[in-house]
Amino acid sequence: MSKPHPAMTRLSDLKPGERGTFFALLADRVRGLAQNNKPYFKCAFKDLRRSATYMVWADGPHFTACDTEWQVGQFFKIRGVYTEHERYGAQVDVEQIRHVQDRDAAEGFNPADFVERSRLDPEQMLAELRNVIDAEIADLPLRKLTRTLIDRHAEGLKVLPATQRNFYPFPGGWLEHTLSVAHTGGWLANWYRERHPDLSPPLNRDVVIAGAVLHDIGRAVELEPGPGPLDPAEPTVDGRLLGHLFLGRDLIRDAAREQADVNPELLRLLEHLVVSHLNHPEWGSPRLPLIPEALILHHADDLDAKMEMFARCLTRDPGPGPFTERDPVLGRHLYKGREV
Amino acid sequence: MSKPHPAMTRLSDLKPGERGTFFALLADRVRGLAQNNKPYFKCAFKDLRRSATYMVWADGPHFTACDTEWQVGQFFKIRGVYTEHERYGAQVDVEQIRHVQDRDAAEGFNPADFVERSRLDPEQMLAELRNVIDAEIADLPLRKLTRTLIDRHAEGLKVLPATQRNFYPFPGGWLEHTLSVAHTGGWLANWYRERHPDLSPPLNRDVVIAGAVLHDIGRAVELEPGPGPLDPAEPTVDGRLLGHLFLGRDLIRDAAREQADVNPELLRLLEHLVVSHLNHPEWGSPRLPLIPEALILHHADDLDAKMEMFARCLTRDPGPGPFTERDPVLGRHLYKGREV
Amino acid sequence: MSKPHPAMTRLSDLKPGERGTFFALLADRVRGLAQNNKPYFKCAFKDLRRSATYMVWADGPHFTACDTEWQVGQFFKIRGVYTEHERYGAQVDVEQIRHVQDRDAAEGFNPADFVERSRLDPEQMLAELRNVIDAEIADLPLRKLTRTLIDRHAEGLKVLPATQRNFYPFPGGWLEHTLSVAHTGGWLANWYRERHPDLSPPLNRDVVIAGAVLHDIGRAVELEPGPGPLDPAEPTVDGRLLGHLFLGRDLIRDAAREQADVNPELLRLLEHLVVSHLNHPEWGSPRLPLIPEALILHHADDLDAKMEMFARCLTRDPGPGPFTERDPVLGRHLYKGREV
Amino acid sequence: MSKPHPAMTRLSDLKPGERGTFFALLADRVRGLAQNNKPYFKCAFKDLRRSATYMVWADGPHFTACDTEWQVGQFFKIRGVYTEHERYGAQVDVEQIRHVQDRDAAEGFNPADFVERSRLDPEQMLAELRNVIDAEIADLPLRKLTRTLIDRHAEGLKVLPATQRNFYPFPGGWLEHTLSVAHTGGWLANWYRERHPDLSPPLNRDVVIAGAVLHDIGRAVELEPGPGPLDPAEPTVDGRLLGHLFLGRDLIRDAAREQADVNPELLRLLEHLVVSHLNHPEWGSPRLPLIPEALILHHADDLDAKMEMFARCLTRDPGPGPFTERDPVLGRHLYKGREV
Amino acid sequence: MSKPHPAMTRLSDLKPGERGTFFALLADRVRGLAQNNKPYFKCAFKDLRRSATYMVWADGPHFTACDTEWQVGQFFKIRGVYTEHERYGAQVDVEQIRHVQDRDAAEGFNPADFVERSRLDPEQMLAELRNVIDAEIADLPLRKLTRTLIDRHAEGLKVLPATQRNFYPFPGGWLEHTLSVAHTGGWLANWYRERHPDLSPPLNRDVVIAGAVLHDIGRAVELEPGPGPLDPAEPTVDGRLLGHLFLGRDLIRDAAREQADVNPELLRLLEHLVVSHLNHPEWGSPRLPLIPEALILHHADDLDAKMEMFARCLTRDPGPGPFTERDPVLGRHLYKGREV
Amino acid sequence: MSKPHPAMTRLSDLKPGERGTFFALLADRVRGLAQNNKPYFKCAFKDLRRSATYMVWADGPHFTACDTEWQVGQFFKIRGVYTEHERYGAQVDVEQIRHVQDRDAAEGFNPADFVERSRLDPEQMLAELRNVIDAEIADLPLRKLTRTLIDRHAEGLKVLPATQRNFYPFPGGWLEHTLSVAHTGGWLANWYRERHPDLSPPLNRDVVIAGAVLHDIGRAVELEPGPGPLDPAEPTVDGRLLGHLFLGRDLIRDAAREQADVNPELLRLLEHLVVSHLNHPEWGSPRLPLIPEALILHHADDLDAKMEMFARCLTRDPGPGPFTERDPVLGRHLYKGREV
Repeated sequence: MSKPHPAMTRLSDLKPGERGTFFALLADRVRGLAQNNKPYFKCAFKDLRRSATYMVWADGPHFTACDTEWQVGQFFKIRGVYTEHERYGAQVDVEQIRHVQDRDAAEGFNPADFVERSRLDPEQMLAELRNVIDAEIADLPLRKLTRTLIDRHAEGLKVLPATQRNFYPFPGGWLEHTLSVAHTGGWLANWYRERHPDLSPPLNRDVVIAGAVLHDIGRAVELEPGPGPLDPAEPTVDGRLLGHLFLGRDLIRDAAREQADVNPELLRLLEHLVVSHLNHPEWGSPRLPLIPEALILHHADDLDAKMEMFARCLTRDPGPGPFTERDPVLGRHLYKGREV
Repeated sequence: MSKPHPAMTRLSDLKPGERGTFFALLADRVRGLAQNNKPYFKCAFKDLRRSATYMVWADGPHFTACDTEWQVGQFFKIRGVYTEHERYGAQVDVEQIRHVQDRDAAEGFNPADFVERSRLDPEQMLAELRNVIDAEIADLPLRKLTRTLIDRHAEGLKVLPATQRNFYPFPGGWLEHTLSVAHTGGWLANWYRERHPDLSPPLNRDVVIAGAVLHDIGRAVELEPGPGPLDPAEPTVDGRLLGHLFLGRDLIRDAAREQADVNPELLRLLEHLVVSHLNHPEWGSPRLPLIPEALILHHADDLDAKMEMFARCLTRDPGPGPFTERDPVLGRHLYKGREV
Repeated sequence: MSKPHPAMTRLSDLKPGERGTFFALLADRVRGLAQNNKPYFKCAFKDLRRSATYMVWADGPHFTACDTEWQVGQFFKIRGVYTEHERYGAQVDVEQIRHVQDRDAAEGFNPADFVERSRLDPEQMLAELRNVIDAEIADLPLRKLTRTLIDRHAEGLKVLPATQRNFYPFPGGWLEHTLSVAHTGGWLANWYRERHPDLSPPLNRDVVIAGAVLHDIGRAVELEPGPGPLDPAEPTVDGRLLGHLFLGRDLIRDAAREQADVNPELLRLLEHLVVSHLNHPEWGSPRLPLIPEALILHHADDLDAKMEMFARCLTRDPGPGPFTERDPVLGRHLYKGREV
Repeated sequence: MSKPHPAMTRLSDLKPGERGTFFALLADRVRGLAQNNKPYFKCAFKDLRRSATYMVWADGPHFTACDTEWQVGQFFKIRGVYTEHERYGAQVDVEQIRHVQDRDAAEGFNPADFVERSRLDPEQMLAELRNVIDAEIADLPLRKLTRTLIDRHAEGLKVLPATQRNFYPFPGGWLEHTLSVAHTGGWLANWYRERHPDLSPPLNRDVVIAGAVLHDIGRAVELEPGPGPLDPAEPTVDGRLLGHLFLGRDLIRDAAREQADVNPELLRLLEHLVVSHLNHPEWGSPRLPLIPEALILHHADDLDAKMEMFARCLTRDPGPGPFTERDPVLGRHLYKGREV
Repeated sequence: MSKPHPAMTRLSDLKPGERGTFFALLADRVRGLAQNNKPYFKCAFKDLRRSATYMVWADGPHFTACDTEWQVGQFFKIRGVYTEHERYGAQVDVEQIRHVQDRDAAEGFNPADFVERSRLDPEQMLAELRNVIDAEIADLPLRKLTRTLIDRHAEGLKVLPATQRNFYPFPGGWLEHTLSVAHTGGWLANWYRERHPDLSPPLNRDVVIAGAVLHDIGRAVELEPGPGPLDPAEPTVDGRLLGHLFLGRDLIRDAAREQADVNPELLRLLEHLVVSHLNHPEWGSPRLPLIPEALILHHADDLDAKMEMFARCLTRDPGPGPFTERDPVLGRHLYKGREV
Repeated sequence: MSKPHPAMTRLSDLKPGERGTFFALLADRVRGLAQNNKPYFKCAFKDLRRSATYMVWADGPHFTACDTEWQVGQFFKIRGVYTEHERYGAQVDVEQIRHVQDRDAAEGFNPADFVERSRLDPEQMLAELRNVIDAEIADLPLRKLTRTLIDRHAEGLKVLPATQRNFYPFPGGWLEHTLSVAHTGGWLANWYRERHPDLSPPLNRDVVIAGAVLHDIGRAVELEPGPGPLDPAEPTVDGRLLGHLFLGRDLIRDAAREQADVNPELLRLLEHLVVSHLNHPEWGSPRLPLIPEALILHHADDLDAKMEMFARCLTRDPGPGPFTERDPVLGRHLYKGREV
């Protein structure tokens, strides 16, 4: 191949007026009727960070292809000019377009690049979570219970977000959040076990680790993948009618019953951690933490969730000025213009 | 029996200065040391509505008996004078006293009179509840599930209060409350089923009845009898760590699993009713009602609970004036001086 | 009439692309200037459930008629094609159009079909309400007072909604809600009167019925018809400055003064019911219920209002999936996909 | 009178161990039985700021008089020693005692000194209030309406507190508060009328003054004198069932109807001020202020009430240290130890 | 000047369809591409109360001038026709247009007319504020401290709004609000000092005046001018990270340290006023008022802020009907249709 | 010393009826008058966990010594019998008593044993805190600032509680809490710095450590020792009027100004951490956390505080049953009866 490829770029990296070659997903295609009574299509091409409109007029070059060959959900290689229309927003003026082919992988095409996902590899996170369980839970039946539940839902957990919209709202988010909570929870359990030697029995680290790993296990049945590959997870019927606290505890209870050898008092404490980890009644928590382990879990969970929201808000905010736009979940403008 | 018995009265019916013969429970007996260095006993005799102190001095007539024969929890037949000490409160000056004997039943002695309890007979209420289930739940497996659960916990339910302190806080209260909620819920289901004919599927009366009967079934494991026969019910460990919503749904879920023939959608709606019947998150409800049946159950439950608190407050308030003392749970003074 | 009429349909029943003949109201007509400097009209035709745009261009067939003959608020018989424009929404391409004529009634034209209204007949509901008053209120002066107030405001009440926006927000809603509350309140009064026989004086059913009938009588002066025949009711000046609690009690108080024979204690209890029926201070209730009758009225009222909102949300939700859109007043997604 | 009287003092000015001669009210007298089976009386003598116990033993000098001659509510001249018992609190050891006689007025006896009351003379305050009405309300019918209402309730208003317990909770308090609110409201009305010249119609000072004078007129029927001369005012039945907002507006509305010449718009604004002056729904306000005059009244009212609570708390706090005890209504410790 | 000028008008005074000559600011100018692939500009011309669009097409008379000579932020003299497009809103059809020239001042052109600002002259208000300080603060070092701070920030204060968005949100607003609070606070201090003569030490009027003048001095560093001359003030980094309470107290504390002669107790009270003037914790107040002076300042501040919001809402509301649109900050519809 | 000492015990370890020899503090001594008109003293002797009454009657053996030699605040060696009076509570019947002497140290007397204090040595904690500062804060000027502030207040900090009543409410508590928060904060900063590598600039660990060490530095001026050696710390005047957030930031700001070399942006972030660490406005936090470091500090602080309350409640609860008494600050019963 003597002639060099035109360098590939990303749709979301183009500046207004700039021409580029990029891969894009056809996310929407709607047929309409123009004032001259001729049909047209309004197509939306997108990558992870930008969506741009391409108006396909009846007398333009791509009308027939659009009408007969293009399907929403397909990927395309496009050469075009990006513009920003003052009323209609982001537009792309398509000059060349074809479906993505296998060889495009060589130029960096990866369908997974088109959806927000954890920066960490799900398989690796899952392996790490199994390691945590095996290495950090001393009580054998409790360790087995925890492993069983993770193994049983492993496939789903790999693509699950931590929540539908609030924190880690992308595939892999469940694992990323859970790993972090387990890690922090384990450290805090060590710290406070040593810090309060007069507690009897001493603070139970196993309960904290198992509680951290399983506190959101109910998400596996509370949420299900959205209708399309790019759609966010949605609540199941049981998810809305009962909520992830009840559903998660069910999974634990059923697995413990099958296993039959879990210390009943350990199980009870674990269930209490699941039931009380939201802490605040106004957040839907039906119980307040009544043991120190539940307190630790609540803080490890809440801090990790908020920290992800902070980081996402700070790194994605597009505007000028030293503060971000008001984050609707956090209810505040974060300070992004700091120098140190 | 030639000589007429002195007419029996009740401790709580005596006016200050009045002499009477009555049965009483020895509720407390504490040994002390007087200023003259002689021992004494301070005893508390009580019936359902009043507790009065009897100071047994070392040189008085009953010291030895009190020291060696009287036990807290025993019943006595007493003749004495009731007074109200301005600092030490209700007193009884005991003139004659002996343990209750079998023959006292003839004069009306009944140990059950000494604890607050439902004015309705538990056996009869239980029978009525079974009737409601059998007559009002059309779906056979759902009916069976509901019956199974009531039958399984029947013994405990007969002596259970509806709540530890707030409404129907006395043995039999659970049954009295549940019956009333089931009755009202059934009527409201009929009314609104007819009132909203466009609902599809129509409002499900079976779900309302089963939900009403089982909404507080978790109390059977949330509460346990107090240490003494006169002590109020107390939360179990699971009761505090998990709460009656989780515990009640467990009972339902386990029974349905055993039974295996309950329509899963019916079961799901029933579980939702249990989980959402408290309605307000700030009352510890983890879910809002999402189906009309849950709304009906919430109102039937809440109205019945409040109505019992109103009635108890209005009928027990001892003070003068047209309004009751401020009820600490209701947070208001009720109007008791009305003429119509 | 040899040739069969084309079957009439409803605008809101047409599918995109479908042609039909239907009656419609001209709800809006705005003159504009196109890019070619020629005038046009943008008209909105609607029936109860749908509004569709018809662009009347200067060189189209209906421009002159639209300009000189069509008036907002008039009804038309239209044949046309319904389409959904991806940006401009629902459109109708009008092929034939004329004003509605008297004979159209034969084909089912009824102007009342174009506004949301109670599914029940106002005259019938009013008659039923009078029956309730006459049959259920035993105390004669109280019965007369209640009748007088309903009779006095009968004309307005027939077209009044229960509330401007929240529940039963359509003509006839006041009657539909009031009838239901009176019916439920009466049943509950019977139930609790029997259930709490120790109340003295016993629970007063007359007060509950009269309170239910009159609890929202203030709406008759709080709300007034909107500017157009299809506009919702709007608050009057007194409605906003004083609110329906004060206004309703005024009506009662004035009527009782005229009548002069109402038992003052009954009147006082009735006024208390009006004043306290909202229950929660945060909903604007200036008093908490202090008598059992007020408690019953509050629950009968609140349940009936919420039930109507549930039913309306469940039967009108257009979207896919097992749950409705989030209802803004109820603040939740209802479960509409249930099978039983 | 050759022999000098022993200097009179006040019970509440005596230091522990000090002997003095003072007037006191017999506020309580309870008969009891001592350990030696002899009767005794426990009497409570009090003046405005202190209550002290006198134990009248059967073998002491005053037993017969106490038994046969002393009545609760009578005033006495007493010579005795004041002590503070570490367990039983303030005590007075009575050496001489007799009923108060007419000539004691010469030594300063005044029964009114024994109850908390406004430092200002009610007659004078009432006259001043009438002056305010006559001088400050320009609109003649509105002025007449306001005068009529004050005149009609003048006798009661002179002894009414502003509230039962919260602010100005003593006879004369209603007048003191009302005068202050009217004065402040008038000034603020002037200030803001000038400050916002673009308001049309301009801010209505008459409405503010009339609203200030009448905002709490409902207290005249909401509260009634307590059972004894020293008991605080208590809510009437209507006071609790309806509240002073409704009751006050009734008085205004009825008087306006009689008078017949009040501008209906003025009357409506005045009613709105009464109805909305509490401002916050959580304080029981059924309406928010919707006109500037209502805003002014709310602030004049609230500031005056809080200022009285501040002043009372700061001037009555008995303890050491730079801050007062926590005031239960204000919910804070005020700074009383300031130097400037 | 023989030929009469066409009478100048204001853009915001034109009725739809009316032609007029007016001055306007070019507030926005965006280049776009029409369907015919020719460029166009969409310009926004505005005065204080209205913004109207002018579409400059490639083949129209002003395209070249717009492309090469017009800058956002410049002022123009325009003759044109105002129309209201049913979809695109306010439009102006420009017939003649040129940049504003010096001589236009003779016809009334004043750039300051194009931004909302206080109706009072900042210089005059500043002078008045200095007068208040000099005349009303008796304590010399306190007076000097207050003067120093105002003088030090005088330039900024003249253009500062009282708040970014809520009350007096326009240049000069800070001064207008501060003057009013100082005036009202001074009057209230006099009134309550006389009203509560038993306070010791008496209510300190100097503290109220100094507190009123300086309560919002922190705004001088909390806010900074927006990016453009017409943009509202924006929070500084310190403004968001620390807030105006901390920043204002810093200014006071630093100035007092420099001055060295301020009575420390006076300074402490003044600081307390700054720190507590928001009163409600939920409004961000870290302290409750603990001295009467702080209470007065809170009410003077809050009433003045709300009154400005009332007046602005009442005088700007454009709609029909007796009530304003719902004010989003006040959360209510105000009554503007009153007759008296 | 041939004869063995009677074994020393602790007052709080004696069972009712048991005789023992122990050291005790005379915490209270009140003179009273008995019914026989003879004086008596009521003394309270206490150690850390119990206070017991000794009634010293005029004709008893210790009256003269008590009257003339015993002073509140002195320590005594006592032999006596401990009893629990059913009305008057814990009593000690003193048989032998003398003032503590120097040689009693040999038997274990240590005045510090009589007040609650941290289980850790203040000197050691202070040294550890200095180590943390020196080892963990990389930025030299920030490290110096932090060291300076700790050194400057070192003497006070050693005896300061973390709070007056809520958490770590005993001498040394400030250090114990601060050390723990710094340790946890440092670990969390490491964790999240690595976890969110896309933050730019990266999460600043120095700011977290310095913020943790100094977040409550304001307590050093907010609280002062109570009046007696055993009395808890009390708020200073500035403490109540301004609060520890303002006071702590003042200390930091003043020290930074002296030092002059602290990076202004670092200082600003540190100040923000102090100002926002309470997080919730309803807890008195004037600012929400706007940077990730502030979020970490809030959680490290809140968890550590709650954990201490949990541990104290769990280890001090005296009652029977599996749950503690309701902790008034935590608002719940904790589970103490767990087995694992």
